Amino acid sequence: MVKIGIIGVGTVGRSVAAILEANSDIIEARAGKKIVVKLGIVQDLTKDRGVNIPLSDDPYDVINDPEIDIVIELMGGIDGPHMLVKKALANGKAVVTANKALLAYHRYELQELAGDIPFMYEASTAGGIPIIGALRNGLAANHIESIMGIMNGTCNFILTKMIGEGADYKEVLKEAQALGYAESDPTFDVGGFDASHKLLILSSIAYGIDAKPEDILIEGIDNITSTDVEFAKDFEYAIKLLGIAKKVGNGVELRVHPTMIPQNSMIAKVDGVMNAVMVRGDAVGETLYYGAGAGGNATASAVIADIIDIVRGNTNPMLGYKKPLESGLTLLPKEEIHSHYYLRLSVDDKKGVLAEVTNLLSRLDISIEAMMQKPDNDKDECVELLFVTHECQEKSIQEAMSELEKLSVVHGKVGMIRIEQ
Amino acid sequence: MVKIGIIGVGTVGRSVAAILEANSDIIEARAGKKIVVKLGIVQDLTKDRGVNIPLSDDPYDVINDPEIDIVIELMGGIDGPHMLVKKALANGKAVVTANKALLAYHRYELQELAGDIPFMYEASTAGGIPIIGALRNGLAANHIESIMGIMNGTCNFILTKMIGEGADYKEVLKEAQALGYAESDPTFDVGGFDASHKLLILSSIAYGIDAKPEDILIEGIDNITSTDVEFAKDFEYAIKLLGIAKKVGNGVELRVHPTMIPQNSMIAKVDGVMNAVMVRGDAVGETLYYGAGAGGNATASAVIADIIDIVRGNTNPMLGYKKPLESGLTLLPKEEIHSHYYLRLSVDDKKGVLAEVTNLLSRLDISIEAMMQKPDNDKDECVELLFVTHECQEKSIQEAMSELEKLSVVHGKVGMIRIEQ
Repeated sequence: MVKIGIIGVGTVGRSVAAILEANSDIIEARAGKKIVVKLGIVQDLTKDRGVNIPLSDDPYDVINDPEIDIVIELMGGIDGPHMLVKKALANGKAVVTANKALLAYHRYELQELAGDIPFMYEASTAGGIPIIGALRNGLAANHIESIMGIMNGTCNFILTKMIGEGADYKEVLKEAQALGYAESDPTFDVGGFDASHKLLILSSIAYGIDAKPEDILIEGIDNITSTDVEFAKDFEYAIKLLGIAKKVGNGVELRVHPTMIPQNSMIAKVDGVMNAVMVRGDAVGETLYYGAGAGGNATASAVIADIIDIVRGNTNPMLGYKKPLESGLTLLPKEEIHSHYYLRLSVDDKKGVLAEVTNLLSRLDISIEAMMQKPDNDKDECVELLFVTHECQEKSIQEAMSELEKLSVVHGKVGMIRIEQ
Repeated sequence: MVKIGIIGVGTVGRSVAAILEANSDIIEARAGKKIVVKLGIVQDLTKDRGVNIPLSDDPYDVINDPEIDIVIELMGGIDGPHMLVKKALANGKAVVTANKALLAYHRYELQELAGDIPFMYEASTAGGIPIIGALRNGLAANHIESIMGIMNGTCNFILTKMIGEGADYKEVLKEAQALGYAESDPTFDVGGFDASHKLLILSSIAYGIDAKPEDILIEGIDNITSTDVEFAKDFEYAIKLLGIAKKVGNGVELRVHPTMIPQNSMIAKVDGVMNAVMVRGDAVGETLYYGAGAGGNATASAVIADIIDIVRGNTNPMLGYKKPLESGLTLLPKEEIHSHYYLRLSVDDKKGVLAEVTNLLSRLDISIEAMMQKPDNDKDECVELLFVTHECQEKSIQEAMSELEKLSVVHGKVGMIRIEQ
């Protein structure tokens, strides 16, 4: 018998306890031992948790219990769990966590502290999809060329509705909030921060890159307009919030942003709150992993998979490397990212304006692949110019956008969405 | 350093050796040790293999070498490898194989013999897609409700062309043969036998079901007509050769057959030679795994993942269970399978025929969900009747087909394709 303690008995913790009980037959056969929740830790003992496990409000009742072999951290936040999992490791206990924020900031320190003690976190990224296992084990023979993931269900739900129904961003956000898919302050999701945590975890396994959310390009979905959506549909693109990690020479691009991708690519077909991660390896080619990225049961499925793996005695290295990786790969500065770009600008509807804009783009070495003009529905006497560029550097585009916004014929902000072919 | 021997240096064996060399930096960092091919075994030593490894033509040079820790079986066939891997296990060597046929017939015996010795076979099913790992580890918390897989690239290539271009089966088969996607005798692929081997492997991990290809329903794609393809398109179905494992009460349906599935399901979107497996678990919900199902490098990616896992010291139970599973699940007899069915029959174009046919169906408790009539392009004075049934039993449909074929107003064979909603 293996005894575990669960710190944090919220939606996921409840599901972990419930599934361990409901599926105990198959879990015991697969793990080889019975897995028993000895104690759950909650902040407020008076609240009914609807689970049949003993409860305490002191996490040290788990961390200092010599009978407990595995600590399941499901409390959320960064500083609290950071301190607690370090103590658990110091006490020689294996750790399983679903905490992406903790890992986005402290994964390398925790790997160092864990050493040979199992530290598992399948549930931290893309919920129930076993993407950590795929990347750490299943694709271990490969140099990873790129990762592109839909790793935030809230954003994907909103973008799917905007594209599918032509609905407005603010309208769909409200619907997502009503359905419980988005928080009352939705910034963490729609701003791309949640996805950036997951991307950082995956890029450590793929490339051994140590970076923090502050170091990488993160843009949210809140500036996408109905013009952008119409353009995407006309040109057979989907718009998805993607977390992208891409090897370019000895550099690695890490970025999270709304992206236009061809409608016929597999990842473009992932709709609603579902998640998917596309991984391209030099040996295996393109692979894709699809499933529920959130929800109590799906996340608990990943937490329990980690517990079973530990009980089986497996010793997967935390970030995928048993020995230091001397890859020579470094994080590319944001300005050096390369992409195709879609630009949208509202300009005066008069002669010479197009020439002024295209001259400016040409001066910055931005070469245009396609251009179209649409009436501006919001402003009379204005038109919207939409451009698709050939591949160019992020720095040039940022400079172009800032220069364009200074032109007297250009009104308001220039819209931009990156394109992946 | 870990030394391995490769028995069978064909397309996959060559790729294994080449990738171990080309990606040695990252493989050594991930595994923690250098992995070296000490010897490759070939039948004909005079043939140039284009790999930089020592060769012999005696498999016992690998099996009896005390320095070799892991035996990689890539020779193909059943009896030869069966004898050799048993000897390798008896000598205490870990085994990695890509041999689906060996496992379709001998997996339980090999599991018994292996005991605690690692026996790995990620490459046997769906090539480079880490589906064995997903099912054995990532989804281990779940009771598996169903598995549906496109596990044969040849069939998927042919069906994609038939649906996409309205091309004829025989025409596309020739094209697949010219491209090297189909053998000169294509029976093993287009008859569904290849997919059945893979399905049996997955169903052992999911359900602990011990069965052989002879025990399960296997139908190929060679009877699909242009009428079927048109019908599918009109009703927004794709036609895919699926391997299906499905829990129904205490029974498990195992079947391989062409299947109509809604075009908007993720698995319907998998085109060309690509493979994908959809797994539905009671905790995780629907997940899908997509990638290349064949090819030297993709298959080698899976073989090397297994080698790395063994070198890391992981001890995954061969078929996923550390203890006997007492699930009480048994293989459902073929006749007891339930499905929706599409039926196609050519009948005399005269009064009373439809009544005769529908009376017969009704007498066998087959209830009709939709019916349409099309001119029969091959036979004057005939029409084709197309039916979609509500869910009914395989036994009734088989009886109906046989009874219908006896009617004087019905010409030729009755066509049938199962439908999954």
